[in-house]
Amino acid sequence: MTKAAVAGVGMLPFGRHRDRTLSDLGVEAVLAALSDAGLAWRDVQLMYCGVVGGGMTPGTGIGAQLGQTGLPIINIDNASASGSSAFREASLAVASGRVDVAAAIGVGKLSQSFGGGSARPGSPEAREGNIRRMQGVMPPAGYFAMRTRRRMHDFGSTIEQFALVSVKNHKHASHNPFAQLQNELTVEEIAHARMIADPLTVPHCCPMGDGAAAAVVVSEERARQLGVRPLITVEASAFRSGIYENGPPSEAETTHLTAQEAYAQAGLGPDDIDLVQVHDAFTVEEIEYCEQLGFCEVGEGERMVENGDTAIGGRIPFSTDGGLLARGHPLGPTGLAQVWETVQQLRGLSGPRQVAGARVGLVHMVGVGGVCIVHILKRP
Amino acid sequence: MTKAAVAGVGMLPFGRHRDRTLSDLGVEAVLAALSDAGLAWRDVQLMYCGVVGGGMTPGTGIGAQLGQTGLPIINIDNASASGSSAFREASLAVASGRVDVAAAIGVGKLSQSFGGGSARPGSPEAREGNIRRMQGVMPPAGYFAMRTRRRMHDFGSTIEQFALVSVKNHKHASHNPFAQLQNELTVEEIAHARMIADPLTVPHCCPMGDGAAAAVVVSEERARQLGVRPLITVEASAFRSGIYENGPPSEAETTHLTAQEAYAQAGLGPDDIDLVQVHDAFTVEEIEYCEQLGFCEVGEGERMVENGDTAIGGRIPFSTDGGLLARGHPLGPTGLAQVWETVQQLRGLSGPRQVAGARVGLVHMVGVGGVCIVHILKRP
Repeated sequence: MTKAAVAGVGMLPFGRHRDRTLSDLGVEAVLAALSDAGLAWRDVQLMYCGVVGGGMTPGTGIGAQLGQTGLPIINIDNASASGSSAFREASLAVASGRVDVAAAIGVGKLSQSFGGGSARPGSPEAREGNIRRMQGVMPPAGYFAMRTRRRMHDFGSTIEQFALVSVKNHKHASHNPFAQLQNELTVEEIAHARMIADPLTVPHCCPMGDGAAAAVVVSEERARQLGVRPLITVEASAFRSGIYENGPPSEAETTHLTAQEAYAQAGLGPDDIDLVQVHDAFTVEEIEYCEQLGFCEVGEGERMVENGDTAIGGRIPFSTDGGLLARGHPLGPTGLAQVWETVQQLRGLSGPRQVAGARVGLVHMVGVGGVCIVHILKRP
Repeated sequence: MTKAAVAGVGMLPFGRHRDRTLSDLGVEAVLAALSDAGLAWRDVQLMYCGVVGGGMTPGTGIGAQLGQTGLPIINIDNASASGSSAFREASLAVASGRVDVAAAIGVGKLSQSFGGGSARPGSPEAREGNIRRMQGVMPPAGYFAMRTRRRMHDFGSTIEQFALVSVKNHKHASHNPFAQLQNELTVEEIAHARMIADPLTVPHCCPMGDGAAAAVVVSEERARQLGVRPLITVEASAFRSGIYENGPPSEAETTHLTAQEAYAQAGLGPDDIDLVQVHDAFTVEEIEYCEQLGFCEVGEGERMVENGDTAIGGRIPFSTDGGLLARGHPLGPTGLAQVWETVQQLRGLSGPRQVAGARVGLVHMVGVGGVCIVHILKRP
């Protein structure tokens, strides 16, 4: 087994891209990643494309535009974790010796073309969907609002504490020209924003948007030939399906188990991590995952945020690019945007949002239905 | 590199399954494959699920019903080749040493819940779709009917010759209790059936339906421990993206290149193959692929069918289970139904449709957008 190394990353600003197709966005992201890696499309031996409800084989169409080299292209729909799954499959294909150069790409265009297809009335799928809607078991209301309320009950947390996650993320995003929302926000503004699902107002929830992001993964040997510096290696790639306990999958518990697996793979622990990207589609998530990834005890997540521990400059910065809440979350590309941010940080190229001396980054993602993925990337 | 071996296969009859969800179908297929392999769900370390437009992470839901073992589940949407892609990824994960036991599953429920999502009016995707629809460049009319007409022009073929593919496939399916259409048909009946896209009447086109199929792939060593007999190994797994030449991808040319790659991997040639499953969603396809897979010269495909060469008992039987035209084509599971049929044939368990002495089977699939996959399976 060789290690997989990230030779290049590319992404587009997340937001609205109404004049361009999903393929247009994908082509640009792949070309940016290839250019960053000093490689050409003909060098890519295998590509995984993460996309949710983008019609049939969108990655295949992107490949065809890039050039008819005949490489295998596999389109993955793993909900929010589609891009992360693509990155993982590409990394493992390299690490297991299947190929030397693999691309992982994620695309999403929720503003115009999103749609997972809907069940025909009268079908058992439609009945299941109706039950779920009647009970409100849909994100954000039935699920993330309930998780927020539960924490308020268990730990006496206040909604203002959760709002601080959004305040911090918007501040990070204000230094990120690729973020969908680059405005700063105050706790008071968040309190008075439009209510989505009590107690969650708009800035407690991630925006819908469009975007694309890509990474080129190569074997360590190939990276050395290419002169990739710093050599950023994939030290861990853990993936667990979710745990269901009398309801939706417990993403906190699954995150804990997946992180344990990733730490074991890398031979590293929470103390070795310099920065973290998490699935913070809703504010409560950073607080829960901060605990479950091992950065504080359960019940202390709120205090981490209040203390500024998870801000750039703090003990363990979370979502340095603004996270899902502000950088945006077009589903397919999100996991690869996290990789993009981590790689730029480890290279020391993050400008005003640089985490000083960052050497090890952890990337976390969950997906509806019970997917959890944790990667650990490291520079020498 | 170890070889991947098929330890077990399972499938449901294809057709209408209106009272059951996509997950219900998937669970049953996986359990059937596990039972066939003598393994339990907890033994499966990795699962790939092929599905087209089945909502978010349907395979993940299937896994959750089977048991919360935490294994990684990756949902693949590669159009018609989704199930074949799942089988390929599972086989390569085993062959490259990532895992010892992987499952590949395909599910589809076109009767009720199919839908790849549609583009919002005014978006560039919607414009692209409109252009395609205006020009009729949609299967079956714009594409397969044109390919049929072109062959009639190039080689003087008659529509009756193409109809013979459907006659043969329906005859094969009449011996297959898992086929969606088990009725026999005559050339005359096909000529008088409802016109879909001139010159293609209904029986020139595959039906829409529901179904699920699965395979359990293990390392050779694990197969020996399990006492799997006969030991059916994956001798080749080739995947090429399509070639576009002034229009839709050329599936014939891509099939040729992919088959060459598969033959090279296996160290085998067309003469070594005992039976073939192809993507025969439309009658013209068997004829084209028969040529491109190397079983006759270009222009001779029609004669192969007329002579009965591609029927059971003939020189090289094609689509012994009825193929897409009669066994059915619910997209996601189709490639795994082909594997199911091939494995049962190589085991000698195919009853009235058994190909005598079958030792090597070739499985071919194409997918909209330019996917082509060829597997070669072999028993000792």
